[in-house]
Amino acid sequence: KGAKKTQSFSGAVTSVTDGLKRLYTEKLKPLEVAYRFNDFGSPLLTNSDFDSKPMVMLLGQYSTGKTTFIKHLLRCNYPGAHIGPEPTTDRFIVVMSGPDERSIPGNTIAVHAEMPFTGLTTFGGSFLSKFECSQMPHPLLDNITFVDTPGVLSGEKQRTQRSYDFTGVISWFAAKCDMILLLFDPHKLDISDEFKRVISSLRGNDDKIRVVLNKADQVDTQQLMRVYGALMWSLGKILNTPEVVRVYIGSFNDKPIDEAATGPIGADLFEREQNDLLVDLMDIPRKACDRRVNEFVKRARAAKIHAYIISHLKKEMPALMGKAKTQRKLIDNLEDVFAKVQREFHLHAGDFPSVEEFKEVLSRYNIDEFEKMKHKLIQAVDNMLGYDIPELLKNFRNPYD
Amino acid sequence: KGAKKTQSFSGAVTSVTDGLKRLYTEKLKPLEVAYRFNDFGSPLLTNSDFDSKPMVMLLGQYSTGKTTFIKHLLRCNYPGAHIGPEPTTDRFIVVMSGPDERSIPGNTIAVHAEMPFTGLTTFGGSFLSKFECSQMPHPLLDNITFVDTPGVLSGEKQRTQRSYDFTGVISWFAAKCDMILLLFDPHKLDISDEFKRVISSLRGNDDKIRVVLNKADQVDTQQLMRVYGALMWSLGKILNTPEVVRVYIGSFNDKPIDEAATGPIGADLFEREQNDLLVDLMDIPRKACDRRVNEFVKRARAAKIHAYIISHLKKEMPALMGKAKTQRKLIDNLEDVFAKVQREFHLHAGDFPSVEEFKEVLSRYNIDEFEKMKHKLIQAVDNMLGYDIPELLKNFRNPYD
Ligand SMILES: Nc1ncnc2c1ncn2[C@@H]1O[C@H](COP(=O)(O)OP(=O)(O)OP(=O)(O)O)[C@@H](O)[C@H]1O
Ligand SMILES: Nc1ncnc2c1ncn2[C@@H]1O[C@H](COP(=O)(O)OP(=O)(O)OP(=O)(O)O)[C@@H](O)[C@H]1O
Ligand SMILES: [Mg+2]
Ligand SMILES: [Mg+2]
Repeated sequence: KGAKKTQSFSGAVTSVTDGLKRLYTEKLKPLEVAYRFNDFGSPLLTNSDFDSKPMVMLLGQYSTGKTTFIKHLLRCNYPGAHIGPEPTTDRFIVVMSGPDERSIPGNTIAVHAEMPFTGLTTFGGSFLSKFECSQMPHPLLDNITFVDTPGVLSGEKQRTQRSYDFTGVISWFAAKCDMILLLFDPHKLDISDEFKRVISSLRGNDDKIRVVLNKADQVDTQQLMRVYGALMWSLGKILNTPEVVRVYIGSFNDKPIDEAATGPIGADLFEREQNDLLVDLMDIPRKACDRRVNEFVKRARAAKIHAYIISHLKKEMPALMGKAKTQRKLIDNLEDVFAKVQREFHLHAGDFPSVEEFKEVLSRYNIDEFEKMKHKLIQAVDNMLGYDIPELLKNFRNPYD
Repeated sequence: KGAKKTQSFSGAVTSVTDGLKRLYTEKLKPLEVAYRFNDFGSPLLTNSDFDSKPMVMLLGQYSTGKTTFIKHLLRCNYPGAHIGPEPTTDRFIVVMSGPDERSIPGNTIAVHAEMPFTGLTTFGGSFLSKFECSQMPHPLLDNITFVDTPGVLSGEKQRTQRSYDFTGVISWFAAKCDMILLLFDPHKLDISDEFKRVISSLRGNDDKIRVVLNKADQVDTQQLMRVYGALMWSLGKILNTPEVVRVYIGSFNDKPIDEAATGPIGADLFEREQNDLLVDLMDIPRKACDRRVNEFVKRARAAKIHAYIISHLKKEMPALMGKAKTQRKLIDNLEDVFAKVQREFHLHAGDFPSVEEFKEVLSRYNIDEFEKMKHKLIQAVDNMLGYDIPELLKNFRNPYD
């Protein structure tokens, strides 16, 4: 019987991502739509949610070498890149793969549903005019998208000049990103108030943060130790996680390392650090694929529980009289409803949504109009979880392994 | 008239310390005694308070190389030194200059009034049996006294085995010391609960703390960076000062640096760090002398204010009747008394003692038995502050300059 189900699903599936996309459309989405899962939590997934490449965002004070870092990895400039000792990059630039070299203005990107940036419209027109997409064909960009950002400012005065919610935008990207690189250089160690706010806005994504102490060949070894020590000293206080953040010390630039300043330590240490960082970067697509599968499975489980709750509520409604009263009672005793559903289907209490938030959305609906339990929809998802996804992973494995 | 006063004071003064000692006995102590300054604040100074050498205390987990560090500086073992990979030093050992090599047990040192350790008796017999003084003739010890300590333990269990107030003793030494060296090694970075308590007990003496990352040649450069970064990360959180603590990275040992592990960086960086640490150590006696003069001047000012307050209180007492009532009123309105004295003698409010603490001691005395204002005593101190001390500093300067 399993064979028949895969047949209906298979066809021209070409990758894990592609498989997930089709499983979503054929098996999970119908359940989500039937029980309005999207109204209660996350919006329905679109193709762009599956197709978007893993993202790496660069953050740091102006002139710490963010744009140069990307240039160094690509071994060429991206369209519209500006590099210079004064504050140069004045906008958020998504550097991604594309058929030919071009820059697309923010207002255009934000309306493209097939790009994962439609959510940015909430930050308004003055943000969108400081947002840009830079495309070019490049093997590295086939696997990773970079987000170059305007340098964080140090003066309090200048912050008020930002015409949009800078930390809000960063927080939005941080949630979508797979890695966040904080760049420092030996002469720009101080963490300004704006930088502190930026770092706070990364909260919840701490595990994605890596630090680069760039231009490390601009000081001698003893100074480098002082600089590095001072950086760790203050980062420990600001990041406030018990695990020490990984710092890569080096000079991420085309120019050869300045051995006159660093002594022989540079050539050796910096090269090893650079290699470590490259290995970590190359590891992102593999990790991102694993994470996508994980999150998909989590979403499917949540959608199932949601369906159980909704259909249970519907079942409790009387056929003719007293609908309003029952609805009120059900909402007031939602905790009991959750408990009953949990017992009936042997679920974990921890997998349930927040009672309060659920109540709030629920009160805007007429329970009587909800769907009854549709076993076929549930079974399709169970089948997907128990058979299709393991099969998909077996057939394609992680393409980056 | 100044000349006459100096004559009475001069004689065979041989150093700044010697001069302060004599000024104290001849000019300041009489004022302190007359107005019971010692009952209200700091005990009378003894010769040992002037003669004691600047002290450097070493702290750290067991086997981080504290005893080896002292041996390395002295270029020989001190009497009773034990070095080994297991916890070896099991007591507090004061390593100081002496006519010949010998160890003196804690119980004996604590009763010697000419040594600055009588205060340690409050920690009881079981501490004194874990306290020792190690003497030897040595040019370095002529300028600095070292305090070797038992390794800080990592297990919670072992703490309960200490038979005395370990952090209390460390806190006592910290107040007397001029520098506190915290030793770490790359394999003993974790800061245990006992170590955290030890560091807390240093509070108020943060400016004396220096950190040594010892045995740095036991790991390669990249590992060393990780280790050093992790150390700064956690020290920043624990020391909780905005200023970055100075960390000396090296291997403080007789054995040559293991270049195989460190690469050429070791020979260069470690040597420079070691030199910096030596320069800082050699600077201690000079700084200690300056500090002693400063503290002496502060004490003299405090003693003068104290004398003004006491004699003012005495003056307010009636000749015959109502003494008890007046005493009560004076104590109740001590704040007004302070304000009056302040105005009368043009003093700073900030230089006055705490009203509450003063009240408490005062209530145990009979104000009527206090001394009246004795202008000669005050004048002697004024003369000392305005003439003798500047003259002393001019004649002898700082012997370490
Ligand atoms: N590793 C490096 N070593 C030496 N100089 C560097 C290095 N990286 C960048 N630079 C120089 O530093 C300056 C700033 O570089 P870049 O414009 O890439 O910084 P940025 O962080 O993107 O600044 P902004 O925030 O203003 O966009 C340029 O002059 C660049 O040549
Ligand atoms: N710089 C160094 N490089 C390599 N080994 C060292 C170094 N310093 C000390 N050692 C070794 O480490 C071990 C512990 O040294 P030592 O006894 O001086 O430590 P300690 O901090 O005094 O320990 P304890 O707290 O137990 O008294 C010894 O075997 C010593 O030889
Ligand atoms: Mg830039
Ligand atoms: Mg020892």
